[in-house]
Amino acid sequence: MGNVHKQHLHMSESSRSRLYSDIEEATEWLAQFGQAAEGGVTRLLYTPAWLAAQQALEERMGRFGLTPYYDDCGNLYGRLSGTDRDAGVLLTGSHVDTVNCGGKFDGAYGILAGMLALRYLRENCGSPRRTIEVVSFCEEEGSRFPLTYWGSGNIVGRYSLGAVPEVTDKEGITLAAAMSGAGFGQKRYRPTERRDIAEFIELHIEQGFVLEKENKTIGIVEGIVGQKRFTVRLKGAANHAGTTPMKYRHDALAGAGAMIGWIEGRALTQPEPFVSTVGQLEVSPNSSNVIPGQVCFTVDVRDAVEERLAAFCLELRQAFAAIAGGRGLSVEVEEWMNMPPALMNPAMNSELAAICEAKRLPWRHMFSGAGHDTQVISRLCPSTMLFVPSHNGISHSPLESSSTADLATGVEVLAEWLYKRAY
Amino acid sequence: MGNVHKQHLHMSESSRSRLYSDIEEATEWLAQFGQAAEGGVTRLLYTPAWLAAQQALEERMGRFGLTPYYDDCGNLYGRLSGTDRDAGVLLTGSHVDTVNCGGKFDGAYGILAGMLALRYLRENCGSPRRTIEVVSFCEEEGSRFPLTYWGSGNIVGRYSLGAVPEVTDKEGITLAAAMSGAGFGQKRYRPTERRDIAEFIELHIEQGFVLEKENKTIGIVEGIVGQKRFTVRLKGAANHAGTTPMKYRHDALAGAGAMIGWIEGRALTQPEPFVSTVGQLEVSPNSSNVIPGQVCFTVDVRDAVEERLAAFCLELRQAFAAIAGGRGLSVEVEEWMNMPPALMNPAMNSELAAICEAKRLPWRHMFSGAGHDTQVISRLCPSTMLFVPSHNGISHSPLESSSTADLATGVEVLAEWLYKRAY
Repeated sequence: MGNVHKQHLHMSESSRSRLYSDIEEATEWLAQFGQAAEGGVTRLLYTPAWLAAQQALEERMGRFGLTPYYDDCGNLYGRLSGTDRDAGVLLTGSHVDTVNCGGKFDGAYGILAGMLALRYLRENCGSPRRTIEVVSFCEEEGSRFPLTYWGSGNIVGRYSLGAVPEVTDKEGITLAAAMSGAGFGQKRYRPTERRDIAEFIELHIEQGFVLEKENKTIGIVEGIVGQKRFTVRLKGAANHAGTTPMKYRHDALAGAGAMIGWIEGRALTQPEPFVSTVGQLEVSPNSSNVIPGQVCFTVDVRDAVEERLAAFCLELRQAFAAIAGGRGLSVEVEEWMNMPPALMNPAMNSELAAICEAKRLPWRHMFSGAGHDTQVISRLCPSTMLFVPSHNGISHSPLESSSTADLATGVEVLAEWLYKRAY
Repeated sequence: MGNVHKQHLHMSESSRSRLYSDIEEATEWLAQFGQAAEGGVTRLLYTPAWLAAQQALEERMGRFGLTPYYDDCGNLYGRLSGTDRDAGVLLTGSHVDTVNCGGKFDGAYGILAGMLALRYLRENCGSPRRTIEVVSFCEEEGSRFPLTYWGSGNIVGRYSLGAVPEVTDKEGITLAAAMSGAGFGQKRYRPTERRDIAEFIELHIEQGFVLEKENKTIGIVEGIVGQKRFTVRLKGAANHAGTTPMKYRHDALAGAGAMIGWIEGRALTQPEPFVSTVGQLEVSPNSSNVIPGQVCFTVDVRDAVEERLAAFCLELRQAFAAIAGGRGLSVEVEEWMNMPPALMNPAMNSELAAICEAKRLPWRHMFSGAGHDTQVISRLCPSTMLFVPSHNGISHSPLESSSTADLATGVEVLAEWLYKRAY
């Protein structure tokens, strides 16, 4: 407890080297649970692999000197109790579930980083003034059931176990049945909703390649973009590709091509982090010698500023109507996702920036273009995120990777920030 | 035989009215063979429905006073023998096979029109000087086996029963086995190759809507367009739709959109009958929140002039390479079909135009944008085609339709031309 009263943690070389090997070991260890035959990790909510991972984390939290406990939807916490019982809890962590054949780092890193930071603080600095907890959220990805943020959503009261959404997985198993099969949802554990969290911080891999491209070690997240998603249905006339003169065509795919061009051209003129993507497209009848009569495609639009996002989407609807009209096509634009941007806490970000500066770490502010549990928790309390570089930006893939040095640096920054806030 | 020596046939009102009701009856009658539960007609090569149709046509040819006979690949002929045995045969007809759930007119019309014209000539004008035959080609569409023009191809020697292509249908049945199952390919019938045909004329529905749009009853075909087909494979980088800034993307679908735009824009500047179509397109991974990493699409290009077709395709390759290069995409353009244009016989067309003028029929010259048996037979002898309007241009569909009046007019023009040439 020698450095309890100092302003900065001074991690010894041996601690640093232990952290380096421990984050590498922990990553491989957790990836065993749900190791997929096809490669990668598949840990879908409430499956045996998922349960084994939570139970293994629970056991390891205990060994790290943390008090593990579940809530009734399956979120797992590890608590390092503070001396001041009235001070709000500092929470860190991420999600334990993965996509099908996902990587070893997505979600897992934030849990393991929190556990290692808390072990370090407990061993080196003793009991904190404020309680710190690490959370392993039960679900974020939406890979088994068609809903996302089930873990964090229960914590903030967006979801409630009194009204479990009636959704089913591909086998027709309901969310309620899957939850009960894993031993949750039966009031055996703590209630899910929490009001005692003062601040939340999530470490996560970037899942993009901006940090790597710009040689930064840490990304301090200013906000998580808002998203809208649309399905666009274009109808023209399917006709013979040989017997229909160009001037008489109502080619739905040519119309879609013009719309894709409009989106790309317009998106390139918007300031970052604006992005827009046509990711999915289906042609009907999809035959080489038939003019496409129908095309259906998705548009994904993301931006940091809700008004700018809305303005773009309005402009998109007008542009699509004009393109379709000029070609004798009918067009339907259906919005099926609308998530507002979530701003991270500027005070927390200033502290984190100061820590990076003091450690002479290359860092930058950035927006998260992907959704995270933090956007849900940020409705409850001041929250933020730290990113570490993803090699080639690859995520949701067995090829996902981050350097051990970067992962360890992230833990160091987290530990320092928790130290400053809790001790 | 009252009008045998006149220059024009003068079809009586009662003959005309009989023709009108007979073409309607015959169309419905032939459509019974292969009537599909899903609607439309399915008469695939060498299937029971196909065989029943050929046998029914054989029987009806006999009743019409024609001598029916098969060749060994299953083409059915009905012969009206001429007095001059040394004069070449005048041949008319079309194909009996259909696509899956096709219409009642495609192919069928040309056979039935030929039979009705020959019956009329035999009954009203007696034996011709030159032999006239009507043919029911066994196969044109390529709907069961991956090859087309099997019927006419055998006649001109492009195919031979001594070297049956080793192709199989969806059930794995070989062409040779299917042929033998229907009783053909065993030298029980006449050899397939013919050298005695002097001229060929095929009546067919337009399968486009140009005649209807322009209020023409007859299209005299100047030529059948040449076709090239390509598969274009574009590779970029599949990345997260949220975390990848616009400026760092290699979006294969955005590249495909630009190529589709190039094709359409360039095609619109070409003279008719040039057409180019992107009919089939597949995106990978095809997920709303992933930037498309790969896109594969087809390009169908058709034109009347071989050099112009080739020049366009060369320009296309250059343009695609430039678009791909500018976007950091790789592109592969694979040509998998190359059929040269076929020119119809100008002398035959002049005679047909004169007949239309004399009958005060609204007609036009036009190119066929679809392939037909005539392009195969035209390598053997002077050949041409007549089109009658297709309602809304719909073909290869149960909705295919043509007016009985137009169908009957086509038969009249055919009968007149055969009369002038054979009597």
